[in-house]
Amino acid sequence: MTSDSALRIIASEADADVGAVMEEIGTRARAAARAIALAPADRRNAALQAMAAALRQRASCILAANAQDLADGRKAGLAASFIDRLALDEERLAAIADAVAEVAGLADPLGRVLAEWTRPNGLRFERVATPLGVVAVIFESRPNVTADAGALCLKSGNAAILRAGSDSFRSSTEIAAAMRAGLEEAGLPADAIQLVPTRDRAAVGEILAGLGGTVDVVVPRGGKSLVARVQSEARVPVFAHLDGNCHVYVDRAADLAMARDILLNAKLRRTGVCGAAETLLVDEACADTHLAPLVTALLEAGCAVRGDTATQAADPRVTVASEADWATEYLDRIIAVKVVAGLDAAIDHIERWGSHHTDAIVTTDEAAAGRFLAEVDSAIVIHNASTQFADGGEFGFGAEIGIATGRMHARGPVGVEQLCSFKYRVHGAGQIRP
Amino acid sequence: MTSDSALRIIASEADADVGAVMEEIGTRARAAARAIALAPADRRNAALQAMAAALRQRASCILAANAQDLADGRKAGLAASFIDRLALDEERLAAIADAVAEVAGLADPLGRVLAEWTRPNGLRFERVATPLGVVAVIFESRPNVTADAGALCLKSGNAAILRAGSDSFRSSTEIAAAMRAGLEEAGLPADAIQLVPTRDRAAVGEILAGLGGTVDVVVPRGGKSLVARVQSEARVPVFAHLDGNCHVYVDRAADLAMARDILLNAKLRRTGVCGAAETLLVDEACADTHLAPLVTALLEAGCAVRGDTATQAADPRVTVASEADWATEYLDRIIAVKVVAGLDAAIDHIERWGSHHTDAIVTTDEAAAGRFLAEVDSAIVIHNASTQFADGGEFGFGAEIGIATGRMHARGPVGVEQLCSFKYRVHGAGQIRP
Repeated sequence: MTSDSALRIIASEADADVGAVMEEIGTRARAAARAIALAPADRRNAALQAMAAALRQRASCILAANAQDLADGRKAGLAASFIDRLALDEERLAAIADAVAEVAGLADPLGRVLAEWTRPNGLRFERVATPLGVVAVIFESRPNVTADAGALCLKSGNAAILRAGSDSFRSSTEIAAAMRAGLEEAGLPADAIQLVPTRDRAAVGEILAGLGGTVDVVVPRGGKSLVARVQSEARVPVFAHLDGNCHVYVDRAADLAMARDILLNAKLRRTGVCGAAETLLVDEACADTHLAPLVTALLEAGCAVRGDTATQAADPRVTVASEADWATEYLDRIIAVKVVAGLDAAIDHIERWGSHHTDAIVTTDEAAAGRFLAEVDSAIVIHNASTQFADGGEFGFGAEIGIATGRMHARGPVGVEQLCSFKYRVHGAGQIRP
Repeated sequence: MTSDSALRIIASEADADVGAVMEEIGTRARAAARAIALAPADRRNAALQAMAAALRQRASCILAANAQDLADGRKAGLAASFIDRLALDEERLAAIADAVAEVAGLADPLGRVLAEWTRPNGLRFERVATPLGVVAVIFESRPNVTADAGALCLKSGNAAILRAGSDSFRSSTEIAAAMRAGLEEAGLPADAIQLVPTRDRAAVGEILAGLGGTVDVVVPRGGKSLVARVQSEARVPVFAHLDGNCHVYVDRAADLAMARDILLNAKLRRTGVCGAAETLLVDEACADTHLAPLVTALLEAGCAVRGDTATQAADPRVTVASEADWATEYLDRIIAVKVVAGLDAAIDHIERWGSHHTDAIVTTDEAAAGRFLAEVDSAIVIHNASTQFADGGEFGFGAEIGIATGRMHARGPVGVEQLCSFKYRVHGAGQIRP
């Protein structure tokens, strides 16, 4: 049975009983996970290369499916930004295939010896990277996630259950078929990458309930309503990705030109990414010299500014900021600005209103920077650089499946190493415990 | 307000409204967590030493409370093994105080640079160990957990919410008061260690719901009913500690004397620990020479043996094993024994019936050992040593709060390093993202 026909058969069953279909997917994923976990790196990499080739070979099928998704989306009146995320063309599809091939080139994350020591009794301990098992990724509009997530899971020895948004369902189905063909070509089980073959939202509930213990971790990639549903329903571990309410704090010892460059980049390079800055905090000790130029630069770059009283005084175009603004992830050309009474007040503000994602300080004072990096409890804390470096690629991880804001297991960019667990190997010579 | 009076005030409120009391505990824990996270190592260690001293000074109070718990327990007809776990005396209490002092002597788990690298654009990245935040420990009879868990959480910069079993409630309350006194003596907030001041089981439900987002991880330490409740109700991450259905596989290339020593130690050194062996698998290729001596050794050491047909043939005292035996964690002087068709069959049996806790192979064949250690998907895999080394102390972790069988974050013994999260510190010189 080819991977395509297997998908179609499941799809026809899906209409009958989502629970039964999902249970079957879980069982298949668990079985495939074991085979993938034990597959050598060169075979996993061969599968990734075969996937990339299949994505290129099947371009016309994938683009035709995408055209149908787009037509339905326009008919349904989806926002232009949503349509843009959904749309594929030859160039975007080639980039997707290239990204899969690049994952093949990453160092093998499995089998890394993370620690090694010997005890006085001669027992030698090794902590070694292993796969997590079965990773379920729930995503929305972007069909490329099917390829990206599938590739990262395979590289890290995990089986993937992918649940695409209903608007990208056809595109994702064709991409998943190509991924599965690549697995089979390399002699690996196609079920290591399964796309949920139904648009029924009940499937999400089944995944969050763990599919009878087969799901090891859920990765939600989507908006607030998805995250809220995952948080309230999940019975399995989650790589939580909450808001990116990121701050830039301009300290009294900040170089103004550097602060301006970092601020404009952090806010405006791309406003829709989770590492985009949403609030600017300015130390009152440098407000006289730094506040107006920073606010003016933002306004002139086309960014709306909502500010406290001091910020409103700096420029008549500044509108009033309410408490809600300190908590808002705009993901838009809007920024909240506040003057704070120095480093401690800045840290307090970030701890109170921030989302523990990414926060930056601009300062030439190493001691202030050290305190900021130590005391701000965020996944990523940055001194003298843009918050938009919050990205697995910029970290050198090659690719990421998301940025985790929880404190468990993975925090920050989730790349292939973060998709690993570990085990202890203990080497003895007959030792028994007294 | 002293820590004792604070506890008493909460206790009197507890009768009124468990939900309100637990919410207050969560709020206090979160506030204390921040202070503890930023406290330098020498202050956290000073608190641990002060706690140990307070435990010694308050011995008579603690033992009096324990005597009341014991009297109630006997009246309620608790099993002798339960009473033994509950009972304290001068010696046990001194050992508890010593254990707390020893935690002070462990290396500081916070601030460790776990990784460090520089990107071509000059950005320097560090991954640094940080606390998890608020750790909730739900335990049953052993009052020493109050001290052990509190000490490990403090050492790792976390605030602890401790929920004692109702049978050890008075003992745990007095121990917690000593721990809180130690915190205050070192100038740290007593609320970094809070004991839930009510026996009401509704408190467990509140903790598992996360106390309004204040609980970062739950550590259940107890029997199957607690674990089952945690698995079905928890809305927050859990360091799952499931069964320790541990195996010893005696390979065809096993030295018989070594196999016997390891087997007897793994099964019988202590039968009630999670690292105790529950099933012996014997390679059919050495069954003729190894099976009968191993079975006889077990029987002569007072261990009941339940076996498959081949094992029953080896000794008339062997009773029949059913499928349920392969899945059972006896925690008693009983073992299940099966003859298997070599290494692959042994691995398949362990993967099918085991609990992914700790499994050992005895063999002189390095290749067979290598395959066993690679392919058995358990937290701890051991070559030529007893499964009873599954213990944080034996790993060199100093002390453990439990042994995790999940694959997320912590796997195997959970010591102070496993009670840590991490963050990324990024050091720039004005870099912006192109």
